[in-house]
Amino acid sequence: MPTPDAIRWQNEQLELLDQRLLPSQTTYLPYQRAEQVAAAIKDMVVRGAPAIGISAAYGMALEALYLASQKDANWAENLSSARTILAASRPTAVNLFWALERCDPLLAKHADIAELAEALLALAQQLHQEDIAINTRIGDHGAALIPEDSLVYTHCNAGALATGGYGTALGVIRSAWRDGKLRGVIAGETRPWLQGARLTSWELMQDKIPVTLAIEGAAAHLMREQKPSWVIVGADRVAANGDAANKIGTYNLAIIAKHHGVKVMVAAPTSTFDLTIDGPDIPIEQRPSEEITHSRGNPVAPDQCQTHNPAFDVTPAELIDAIVTEHGVILSPDRERIRQHFADAGVKP
Amino acid sequence: MPTPDAIRWQNEQLELLDQRLLPSQTTYLPYQRAEQVAAAIKDMVVRGAPAIGISAAYGMALEALYLASQKDANWAENLSSARTILAASRPTAVNLFWALERCDPLLAKHADIAELAEALLALAQQLHQEDIAINTRIGDHGAALIPEDSLVYTHCNAGALATGGYGTALGVIRSAWRDGKLRGVIAGETRPWLQGARLTSWELMQDKIPVTLAIEGAAAHLMREQKPSWVIVGADRVAANGDAANKIGTYNLAIIAKHHGVKVMVAAPTSTFDLTIDGPDIPIEQRPSEEITHSRGNPVAPDQCQTHNPAFDVTPAELIDAIVTEHGVILSPDRERIRQHFADAGVKP
Repeated sequence: MPTPDAIRWQNEQLELLDQRLLPSQTTYLPYQRAEQVAAAIKDMVVRGAPAIGISAAYGMALEALYLASQKDANWAENLSSARTILAASRPTAVNLFWALERCDPLLAKHADIAELAEALLALAQQLHQEDIAINTRIGDHGAALIPEDSLVYTHCNAGALATGGYGTALGVIRSAWRDGKLRGVIAGETRPWLQGARLTSWELMQDKIPVTLAIEGAAAHLMREQKPSWVIVGADRVAANGDAANKIGTYNLAIIAKHHGVKVMVAAPTSTFDLTIDGPDIPIEQRPSEEITHSRGNPVAPDQCQTHNPAFDVTPAELIDAIVTEHGVILSPDRERIRQHFADAGVKP
Repeated sequence: MPTPDAIRWQNEQLELLDQRLLPSQTTYLPYQRAEQVAAAIKDMVVRGAPAIGISAAYGMALEALYLASQKDANWAENLSSARTILAASRPTAVNLFWALERCDPLLAKHADIAELAEALLALAQQLHQEDIAINTRIGDHGAALIPEDSLVYTHCNAGALATGGYGTALGVIRSAWRDGKLRGVIAGETRPWLQGARLTSWELMQDKIPVTLAIEGAAAHLMREQKPSWVIVGADRVAANGDAANKIGTYNLAIIAKHHGVKVMVAAPTSTFDLTIDGPDIPIEQRPSEEITHSRGNPVAPDQCQTHNPAFDVTPAELIDAIVTEHGVILSPDRERIRQHFADAGVKP
């Protein structure tokens, strides 16, 4: 059984798979307004940089459809407010801003809200479909780097559930599996939200790819004992200097990988790059203490316990052996090689 | 309020604080037989290498008292079986075997079970009291290494709850705090049992030592951002070559610390050393999958999901800057320096 779609357009509304309930329940929640979509992003109904971007584009389309149905005279102002609310939902993943910027020319072009709404919906659907095709290309470029009989290590969920479909890091793993190169995958459980336990294990088991789940604390022990060839992760933002923001714990894994001679691959579409910023300047979202101090509403730490709960970390480029995009591979990424990759691909940064 | 005793002898029985219920509940469970104590060790009612050793000694005393009360003619054989069951309860921490070996001369010496039982009980109580004194000395030796205005990082719980009292790693932290050298402590939550969240945060908050809880995944990010001076951990077994087995995740932390120029201290009594073995040969306990795949009985991973769940890892000596025992400090530990430390202290290895 393939992984269900994280995002679907159905019954003239957006439906998001509630990823907080996986793998126990497969429930879709319906959305009609941008503000609801922003809340769904913030509350982690949908997560993963590409999936957040696509959802935001649908959020703009939904709001325009609503304003058109209301024949709202102030639609331009209201749509601009909706854009602001969507942009504020989560600060680290850059695909969110990229998707909203893809909407902007349509806002400038259409003077009729009904026409604009149709155009925004078509754009959201196009971005959604494009993302699946992009992930397939990332998967194939990345798989070419994987040696035969490999065990690979992944973190969080950069899978079909984090994207339009197929996945970035899990796209590479799917392609490598298809090519007969993998003997297995180790998935870090990824506290505090357990995306590795709940989502990655589940996605890979649906595809019959052998996966073994481990706590983050076991990474060094397992790299020494099990000798994976690559750590393969996604990214929430790749900076101009090649540093990559991704789920908290990725920087740990990259250091531990380097110590054991294991290579590190970041799989991300060019829409995840932000060439206006360097790694140390990427804003890191701090999330509520309760994500650590409570488990399913029950306390697992003392009352009033202070926490650090950053949602992401930044892995410096020097710990990354390859960044893989839909246009190919950037080996030993740095500022110049990234610039050149965009120039060769003819992609405007 | 000081941390309650993990272990107490009361009403002519052993009472263990059920650490699985902390910090929500402070409940003592009573024990009258060795087999019950072995189950309590296995099931993590009591944990921490020194506390396991003390509990095992009480277990031997309990069994002897029971056999004496029964006027059991086969007491020697039955006591020997009890010893075997206690020794099999957990494989990694060496204090368990050390404590049982401390009992052996009494078994050889006493031909009368009632006399033997009294002698075993006196020994268990002596080991218990000695451990507190030993931890105080470890704490003071370790604190001397901590610079002023330090933030330190710890993992799992090597505190009063893991020992007879005061703690090993947390003993160093308590002494450094008393000496005015600490601005705070970061405690890793320590999946899957959350000893950092449930026990270490709680112990330190009871003593008003500023503690901040974080997931293991945040270690590299926090070391870069917060610049701790030392990682301070306990050990379950220190090998002849200076490698140290400790709670899974310690090896991660040591690698990440080295990468950031943060020093690594292992605080452990000489009873935690095993000079008959090198690090790679230390047996690593594998624990049940359910510890990772379930949270409070609820699944957080797919059915039939495979796991790796090692309870400990081994940190190589070259990543350890200091091992601190009750006799002083072993800087840059290696086989020869450890041998010399035992020789200088006049401790038989």
